[in-house]
Amino acid sequence: MTTQAHRTEATIEADPTVPIIRITRDFAATPEQLFRAHTDPELFARWVGPDGMETTIDQWDATDGGRWRYVAGRDGESYGFRGCFHTVRPDRLVQTFTFEGMPDDVALETLTFEDLGGGITRLHAQSLCESFEGRDQWLASGMETGVNEGYAKLDALVASGRV
Amino acid sequence: MTTQAHRTEATIEADPTVPIIRITRDFAATPEQLFRAHTDPELFARWVGPDGMETTIDQWDATDGGRWRYVAGRDGESYGFRGCFHTVRPDRLVQTFTFEGMPDDVALETLTFEDLGGGITRLHAQSLCESFEGRDQWLASGMETGVNEGYAKLDALVASGRV
Repeated sequence: MTTQAHRTEATIEADPTVPIIRITRDFAATPEQLFRAHTDPELFARWVGPDGMETTIDQWDATDGGRWRYVAGRDGESYGFRGCFHTVRPDRLVQTFTFEGMPDDVALETLTFEDLGGGITRLHAQSLCESFEGRDQWLASGMETGVNEGYAKLDALVASGRV
Repeated sequence: MTTQAHRTEATIEADPTVPIIRITRDFAATPEQLFRAHTDPELFARWVGPDGMETTIDQWDATDGGRWRYVAGRDGESYGFRGCFHTVRPDRLVQTFTFEGMPDDVALETLTFEDLGGGITRLHAQSLCESFEGRDQWLASGMETGVNEGYAKLDALVASGRV
């Protein structure tokens, strides 16, 4: 597969009018590969989160309405995340997301996979929060480190041929 | 149980700063009764929706991450609705909501039950949409008829002692 030059740093943007975070990231992968990387629990656990974090899948039912939960651990600390898959389609994933340390905060995430041609797919990941304050706390939390380190692991996983 | 005067018409408000619809409605019921009326599928099917609509529960797992689906029918037409329960707690329900006729529209709903004393509980139902356009379409759809007729049926169900 020939690949064109593409952006390998995620763009993380705060929408000015609605409490949404939009992440855009290009991958040398097909839409089908990005879909699998987000719905196959063994693949997902290999790339999500910052370097050095170990992800253990606890529950994972990637079907419309199915639940998911995983635990991320590093340096003896562990952090639970949970939600449900609302929509699972090859072109679109919609899921809820909660960090269990803040159980009343729920984000609604929508992921789409845009084929740019030339072996490149653009991931669009949108997180809808219920308030601007909650959205801006996420943005101020240093989330870009986990996002970028996770996507770099996904790049490597795709390049290895395992996706 | 003695009950004080309370508002029996739902207040439906559009938030000016975020794409949220807020519904407020008082009931001569306890928080526990309102929780049951929203989580027990047999009770829910008896009151939800406008007069003359028959609701048939297809899937219903009122636990954290569990899925739900029901079909509403009237005059030979039927309409599917589906989602998942993200959070199921006596004081708080969070769930996703999609009308299957518009499968890419997903709302995130949060319900809380505020005990006002005197046998009255105030239901706060919030629907978060991903755009103001989508939110305003719901508001323009005549939703208040279904909301008010449904809650009147819930009043009657509570008064009958079956909740």
